[in-house]
Amino acid sequence: MNAEYNIIPGSVVAPLGFKANGVFCDIKRIGTGKGSEKGQKPDLALICSDEKCVTAGMFTTNQVCAAPVKLCIQRMKKGIARAIVANSGNANACTGEQGLKDAYEMADETARVLNIKDEEVLVASTGRIGVLMPMENIKSGIHLAAENLGSKAKDADKAAVSIMTSDTRSKQIAVEFNLSGKTVRIGGMCKGAGMIHPGMSPNGKRPTTISGLHATMLCFLTTDAKIDKKSLQEALQEAVAQSFNRITVDGDMSTNDTVLILANGRAGNTEVSSSKTGKAFKTFLEMLKVVCCELAKMIVRDGEGASRFVTIYLDGARNNIDADTAARAVANSVLVKTSWCGGDPNWGRIMDALGYSNAKIVEEKVDIGYSNSESPKILWAIKNGRPTEVSFADLCKIVGNKEFNVHINLNNGKGSTVIYSSDLTEEYVDFNKGNVSDPTLLGG
Amino acid sequence: MNAEYNIIPGSVVAPLGFKANGVFCDIKRIGTGKGSEKGQKPDLALICSDEKCVTAGMFTTNQVCAAPVKLCIQRMKKGIARAIVANSGNANACTGEQGLKDAYEMADETARVLNIKDEEVLVASTGRIGVLMPMENIKSGIHLAAENLGSKAKDADKAAVSIMTSDTRSKQIAVEFNLSGKTVRIGGMCKGAGMIHPGMSPNGKRPTTISGLHATMLCFLTTDAKIDKKSLQEALQEAVAQSFNRITVDGDMSTNDTVLILANGRAGNTEVSSSKTGKAFKTFLEMLKVVCCELAKMIVRDGEGASRFVTIYLDGARNNIDADTAARAVANSVLVKTSWCGGDPNWGRIMDALGYSNAKIVEEKVDIGYSNSESPKILWAIKNGRPTEVSFADLCKIVGNKEFNVHINLNNGKGSTVIYSSDLTEEYVDFNKGNVSDPTLLGG
Repeated sequence: MNAEYNIIPGSVVAPLGFKANGVFCDIKRIGTGKGSEKGQKPDLALICSDEKCVTAGMFTTNQVCAAPVKLCIQRMKKGIARAIVANSGNANACTGEQGLKDAYEMADETARVLNIKDEEVLVASTGRIGVLMPMENIKSGIHLAAENLGSKAKDADKAAVSIMTSDTRSKQIAVEFNLSGKTVRIGGMCKGAGMIHPGMSPNGKRPTTISGLHATMLCFLTTDAKIDKKSLQEALQEAVAQSFNRITVDGDMSTNDTVLILANGRAGNTEVSSSKTGKAFKTFLEMLKVVCCELAKMIVRDGEGASRFVTIYLDGARNNIDADTAARAVANSVLVKTSWCGGDPNWGRIMDALGYSNAKIVEEKVDIGYSNSESPKILWAIKNGRPTEVSFADLCKIVGNKEFNVHINLNNGKGSTVIYSSDLTEEYVDFNKGNVSDPTLLGG
Repeated sequence: MNAEYNIIPGSVVAPLGFKANGVFCDIKRIGTGKGSEKGQKPDLALICSDEKCVTAGMFTTNQVCAAPVKLCIQRMKKGIARAIVANSGNANACTGEQGLKDAYEMADETARVLNIKDEEVLVASTGRIGVLMPMENIKSGIHLAAENLGSKAKDADKAAVSIMTSDTRSKQIAVEFNLSGKTVRIGGMCKGAGMIHPGMSPNGKRPTTISGLHATMLCFLTTDAKIDKKSLQEALQEAVAQSFNRITVDGDMSTNDTVLILANGRAGNTEVSSSKTGKAFKTFLEMLKVVCCELAKMIVRDGEGASRFVTIYLDGARNNIDADTAARAVANSVLVKTSWCGGDPNWGRIMDALGYSNAKIVEEKVDIGYSNSESPKILWAIKNGRPTEVSFADLCKIVGNKEFNVHINLNNGKGSTVIYSSDLTEEYVDFNKGNVSDPTLLGG
C-alpha cells in the first residue's frame, strides 16, 4: 500500500487549528554573564491547539529520566492535551524534587497564560544535565511566546529553532493526504544531533522487544485527523519503532528523549480506529511513518560531525530481536564508524562487530554487501564468510559517497531490520570533548 | 596477603628454560610491492621451552573467531605444549578452511624445525582480517626465528616487538618471588592498542558471568613454576578476569584475543595445586595477577590515540554482573570518553550512561566522585543523584591529569568492579579512519 501524499509547508501549524512560536528567554543566562556566547538563539517553544486534543507519547527508557519526561508519562494516562512547552539549554535532568516542581510549574504557567487547564500542558526539555531551571526566564519566555503564537510557517520555524541544541539546522516536515474523502494533515518538528540512540516506549519502561536502547531527541507532531486515543498511541508506537528507535549517532541514549503527538480532529474525518478493519487506520499509520522516518533521517544526517549517512539493512537473523542486536552492534562499533569516516569498506570490522554481538552468528553463512543510489545493485564483498572477487576499488567507490547502504545477510533465519547510522569523525570528538574553560558550553 | 616480589628483566625468557626471538619475514609483503611502508619491523615471534610444559589459555568469545584461536582451543584439551609461534600483519581471521589449514601448517613447520611434536605448538596471529596467510614468508620466518632463539632479554625484546601492530611500544614484564622456599619466575609480553575490549573464556564460549564482551590483544606468559594443569587454568582464568577482561579502549572485541601460559616446572618447587589448602597456590595466583594487571594496564596506556588512563571503581551494584554492566556502559560511552579527552568531569554523561545500561540504577541513590594519585581523597561531585558543593574547577583539576579515577557508588547492593579505560581522541579517529589509497594499512 502506498497512499499518496503531498509535502506542504508549516510543519506543526500545517494541520488546522494549531499555532506555535519560539522566543529567546536566555535559559543559559547569557545576560548574567553565566551563560555561553552562542548568541540569542530562541530557546523556548510553544505549540498549542485551539481545541482539546487526544495525545500520545513515547519516552526514553533511560533509568535516569528527566523531570519533564516524568510529567509527560503521568499525563499520558488521561491522554488529553492542548499545548506543549519546550526549551533548549537545560535538560532539567538530575535535578531532583526541585526539577520536578519546575517542570510542573512550566506547565502551570503555560496553562495560566493560555487560559487552559494545567493538565492539558505537556513539557519537554533538552540541554545540560544537572542544572536547575532558571524559572524567571522560563516564565517570561512562556508569556512572550504566548503573545506571539501564530499559524504561519514562520511561527513554526521559530518553534523549531528554539528546540535546537547542537543541531546545525531546524528539522520540520508536514504532509497532507486523503482520509476517507477528507483532507487530513500531519506536521512535525524534531531536534537532535548528539546523544542519539533512542529506545523509547510509551511509559519509559523497557519492552523486551527492543534489544539495544540508547539522543536527546525531541519530536513534536500535530494532526487535524480525528482519531481515538488508543489508536493514536498504537500508531505512534509503531511509527516510532520504525523511525526514531532505528537511528543511532553515537550509541548514547539520552535522559530526555520524547516524541509527542496532538490530534485535534479539526479535519472532520470519520474517527479513525485501529479496531476497525477499514483502511483509514492503515493510511493514517503509513503517513505518520512517513513523517517520523523523514524527521528521524534528518537527525542522523545532521549528526554531530557526521560526514556520511549509512543505512544498514540486516536480513536472515534468527529473529527480529537478533536482527536488531546485530545491526546495532555494527552501527555503534567505534571501529566500524571510523572506517566509514575514511570511506573504507572495512568488512572485517563489520564481521568482528557481528561476532561480538549477542545475536547468533555463523561466520560461514554471513554475506556483506554495499550499494548506494547511483549503484543500487548490491556489490557483495563477502559471501558465506569469505571475500568475493569484487575489487576493493569498486567497494571504495560506493563507500566514498556521502550516503550508502550496507547489506548484511546472516542466512540464519527470517529476522530483519533497518538501522540508520552515521560515521564517527574527528569533528565529533572535537565538538564533544568540551571546553572546560566555559562549562556552560559542555553538553548534557 | 601481599607476597613480596622483585621485577626482573627478560620477560618471557626470565623463567628458567625458556628461549625466544622475533624476525622480519615480510608478512605484509612489502617486498612484493603489495605491502605497506611501515618498514621492516619484525613480524614473527617464537617462544619455546627446553622441556615440556603444562599450558592454559583464555580466548576471545567473539563468534567470528580466527583460525589460530580455534587451533589453540583444540590443543588446550591435552594441555601440554612447548612452543608458541605468533605473527603480526595478518589475523588469519575470516579465512575459512584454508586459514585453518595454514594455522596448523604454522604449528607443524615450527614443530619440524624445533624437532618437537606437532601438537606441542600453539599459534597466535594479529593484523588484517580476511587475507590468507603468506605461508612461504611465514615458513622462512619460522626457520630464521628458530636459528636465532636465545635466552637473553634482547631475544625476548625481539619477540615482543614482533607481535606489535598499532602499539607504539613493546609491553613486557617479569617477576621473581619465593614459593615454598624456591625462587620462581613469571614472565610475560603482550600487544594491543585498538579493538580492545577483551572478554575471554577458556574455550571461547561465553560465560554468563561476563556481561559485556568485546582488541586484538595477545599475551604470552611463561613460568618455571611447577604446577598441575588444572590449577594453572584456574589461576589464569582468575588472573585474566581481574586484568585483561577489565580493560577497554574502544569497546570492540577482537576475533583473535588470546592469552597463553606455559609452565615448565624448572624452578623445582613442590607442585602447586589449587586443591590443597596451602598458601602456594594463593601466592602463585597473586603473582600471576600482578603480571597480568601490569600488562593489561600497559595496553590501555598505549591505547590508539589515548591521552588519558581512567580507572573506574564501581561499588554498590545489585550484584557483580550489574557492576560490570554499569561500569562498562560508562567506560564505552562515546560521549563520556570524548569528555575525558577534553579534561571535562562531565558527570551528567556518566549518569546518562549508567541510566541506559542494563544494570539496575536508582537515580536518587547514585554517588559519583573523582580522585588521582596527587589527590587520593575522593571529591564527590554527585551525592544521592544531586550535585554537591564541590567546585567545577576542583573537579577539572583532577580530570585534567593524564591518569585519574572515577568512583561510582550505586548504593544498591554489594556488587563491585574495577574497569581500566582510556579517553577517545581525534587521533584515534584519524588513525582508524584508514587510508583507502593503501588498503594494506587498513586495520583488521
